[in-house]
Amino acid sequence: GIAHAQTNVKIYGIVDTGFIKQTDADWKMGENTNNRIGFTGTEDLGSGLAATFQLERRFNLNDGTSATDLDWEGAANVGLASEKWGKVRMGRMNEISNEYIQSLDPFFQNGVGSMIWSTQRAIRIGNTIRYDSPSMKGVNVSVRYSLSTKTDTGTDNDGYGVGVKYDVMPVLLQASWARQADSDNSYIWNLGASYKFGPALVSVAYEKTDNKGWLLGKALTNAGKQDTAFVALKWNVGPGTVLGLVEYSKLKNNVTVGNDDNAVMKYALGYDYKLSKTVSIYGNISYTDYDSYQLTKALRGAYPDYAKSSMAYAVGMTYRF
Amino acid sequence: GIAHAQTNVKIYGIVDTGFIKQTDADWKMGENTNNRIGFTGTEDLGSGLAATFQLERRFNLNDGTSATDLDWEGAANVGLASEKWGKVRMGRMNEISNEYIQSLDPFFQNGVGSMIWSTQRAIRIGNTIRYDSPSMKGVNVSVRYSLSTKTDTGTDNDGYGVGVKYDVMPVLLQASWARQADSDNSYIWNLGASYKFGPALVSVAYEKTDNKGWLLGKALTNAGKQDTAFVALKWNVGPGTVLGLVEYSKLKNNVTVGNDDNAVMKYALGYDYKLSKTVSIYGNISYTDYDSYQLTKALRGAYPDYAKSSMAYAVGMTYRF
Amino acid sequence: GIAHAQTNVKIYGIVDTGFIKQTDADWKMGENTNNRIGFTGTEDLGSGLAATFQLERRFNLNDGTSATDLDWEGAANVGLASEKWGKVRMGRMNEISNEYIQSLDPFFQNGVGSMIWSTQRAIRIGNTIRYDSPSMKGVNVSVRYSLSTKTDTGTDNDGYGVGVKYDVMPVLLQASWARQADSDNSYIWNLGASYKFGPALVSVAYEKTDNKGWLLGKALTNAGKQDTAFVALKWNVGPGTVLGLVEYSKLKNNVTVGNDDNAVMKYALGYDYKLSKTVSIYGNISYTDYDSYQLTKALRGAYPDYAKSSMAYAVGMTYRF
Repeated sequence: GIAHAQTNVKIYGIVDTGFIKQTDADWKMGENTNNRIGFTGTEDLGSGLAATFQLERRFNLNDGTSATDLDWEGAANVGLASEKWGKVRMGRMNEISNEYIQSLDPFFQNGVGSMIWSTQRAIRIGNTIRYDSPSMKGVNVSVRYSLSTKTDTGTDNDGYGVGVKYDVMPVLLQASWARQADSDNSYIWNLGASYKFGPALVSVAYEKTDNKGWLLGKALTNAGKQDTAFVALKWNVGPGTVLGLVEYSKLKNNVTVGNDDNAVMKYALGYDYKLSKTVSIYGNISYTDYDSYQLTKALRGAYPDYAKSSMAYAVGMTYRF
Repeated sequence: GIAHAQTNVKIYGIVDTGFIKQTDADWKMGENTNNRIGFTGTEDLGSGLAATFQLERRFNLNDGTSATDLDWEGAANVGLASEKWGKVRMGRMNEISNEYIQSLDPFFQNGVGSMIWSTQRAIRIGNTIRYDSPSMKGVNVSVRYSLSTKTDTGTDNDGYGVGVKYDVMPVLLQASWARQADSDNSYIWNLGASYKFGPALVSVAYEKTDNKGWLLGKALTNAGKQDTAFVALKWNVGPGTVLGLVEYSKLKNNVTVGNDDNAVMKYALGYDYKLSKTVSIYGNISYTDYDSYQLTKALRGAYPDYAKSSMAYAVGMTYRF
Repeated sequence: GIAHAQTNVKIYGIVDTGFIKQTDADWKMGENTNNRIGFTGTEDLGSGLAATFQLERRFNLNDGTSATDLDWEGAANVGLASEKWGKVRMGRMNEISNEYIQSLDPFFQNGVGSMIWSTQRAIRIGNTIRYDSPSMKGVNVSVRYSLSTKTDTGTDNDGYGVGVKYDVMPVLLQASWARQADSDNSYIWNLGASYKFGPALVSVAYEKTDNKGWLLGKALTNAGKQDTAFVALKWNVGPGTVLGLVEYSKLKNNVTVGNDDNAVMKYALGYDYKLSKTVSIYGNISYTDYDSYQLTKALRGAYPDYAKSSMAYAVGMTYRF
């Protein structure tokens, strides 16, 4: 029934599903953007200060299952936000270095066109306090501190991260560094830039990973070093956007792949057509060329017959509410 | 706190619980209608076209537990709806053949009065694309295609289903056929009709099941054939509704029950009294008479002393929001 | 997107996290008040009667995990409420004896300042029908009946509870008695009183527990007897509130701690500063002095080096929406 006014809670979300075909795999249904439903609120405290909260659940739309075993995988935090002093949040939220490089990937690190993931990637992180500065003449600074939650693996460490961004149209320059909690002091850092030429945004990024085999207290199978670089394009053409990505990534001293350089090239092309401000349909295609079968296994995961190259296609629909 | 306007998301649901007593079982609390909370939205795309989504969670109200291990058991889909061309949905949604026969059961396939379930029943199904036509002079057609998600059981198959309905008051005629995904090519089909005599709706249905021992990739213990037929009544009397069901179901070539016909008769009577448009209290009673102890076990499930007949009572309350 | 009016469902919740340090434990993030999000509704049925429902989810904000394996840990119930006759609810809801004593603890039985828990504590309980009377010249009565859900432990019993309260400012007097379901007929009872002196509320409480080693069908490790008494203070000072608690608790005939009296003293002091009606920051500190290492283990739980006394500090932020 429709009746009463509602509390000062905003419900938002994304629902997305479509059909995906990859080399050596059956057609399946899956997403291009993480499915989510969230609840946020802001309470004005006066003097330009506000309290904020965010709760965001992630799930798979194609079959209705949870995306992870977390109740609020996407966000679970409370904080204070000041126009003048910036904002502080506590709880679970985006990890800075991932947030930085993800923002330059036109496929936003999702779906068949996604940039290749680092082997030491924590997209979101809990037990964290994070500060984001206001824009100071185009400069933004973000820092976070994440508590270790383990006491017994011998690979425990608190996590921390920092990001600095210069964002004055048409130029964006950014750099970030991160150590995840309980990662045996692994680290990632990345550099990025983008430039807006009228309707086209061109981005470049470089990322370096030193993965010591642990992440958030869990042992990983792919300890080693990884270097990644990509050039990307986001080009508004009428009601649609053309997306492009060319990426090179190299693993070495890797326990799965071996000590020598193992490189992968990825080429992705996508088209997103807006049916309205919040609804779009998309078609993406990508080609990935691996140096070795071992590298395919390490990056794509186990499947019947490892191919040294793989095509992937996806068509689907996204609804943002 | 009550304050802001809200997003174009509608929250809806049903909460229902009461007390249930069955032969050879203690009093327990349980539902008469599946408990749920859902979120839906519609985005107008112009030209009679709209985008839609639905997310629906199922749970047990009596103890606060989840109904299944799915995040969105009831629905998880996104789609497009056109007044002229019908609607398409992708994700998890109602399976057509179940939706058809369920709509003729006055107890809506829930609670102690429920029609006897088929041994090959998928109420809702994921990895599915479904199309529903608009009404064409009273005729509606629904079709769906559901992707297999298994690759290794040797009993894998894609699922599909179709339903056709003629619905012009006071007459409803319908037929549907379904094969569930990863069911070793099991199938169900059913026929149904109803006629509205003033305040009374009389329904008849017939359903045939060929259960080959698999459903959605899971092995079942009750492979075999099943035939079901029922006559039902829904009679509005003042602010209440009288519900009645007489059903015959027969299992044969069944791995649990044996090769010979094993029949069951069920008689159910209910009364639903509306306290308002959305709130009602109910009392239901049913009597079930099984041909054999094995059939009791197959259809009712394990309990201390199998009886060849069983009475069940339920009283409770339903709130739709 | 912000657009439509909303259904007659109210969304509410609490988000709270902060930093906690306890003797012999690392700094961690955690809550001072249980994190929750809930959905409630009320449907007017006329003649002073209404239907009500409540669904409340509990979770950990610091890392986004579920607080328990229940979908609706906090509440899952439907009921009827009459101004004249009181209210009846069915499903999962607060257990009366816990609700009574919790209301006198200025720390509301949460966080480092919390009163010491009884070894037979069920905060909320399912499969329950509960009646709460209206206020009759300041007197309120609550009763509940909870169905057993076990049939095989030999320690099964239905649960029930009753509470009586006299609440006429500045005086509150209350008494309650409870037996949890499937607890081998364990019981708890408590007495409490409070008096309001202007801005200060002084409370006293006494609780007696006879724990026979079972609770809601689960075996407990700490069967035995427990006596608890506390004096507490809640003092409004400007926009803040000073909280104080001095508690004595004694275990005996306890399978973990032994037959002799083992006592614990707890001293807690807190300050809650309101940034607005719904947002506050807090700082709490407590000191607990145990008679024996075994008692520390029984009440605080396992940790590396059992100390006979322990300090705990917490600072954080609470946002109620």
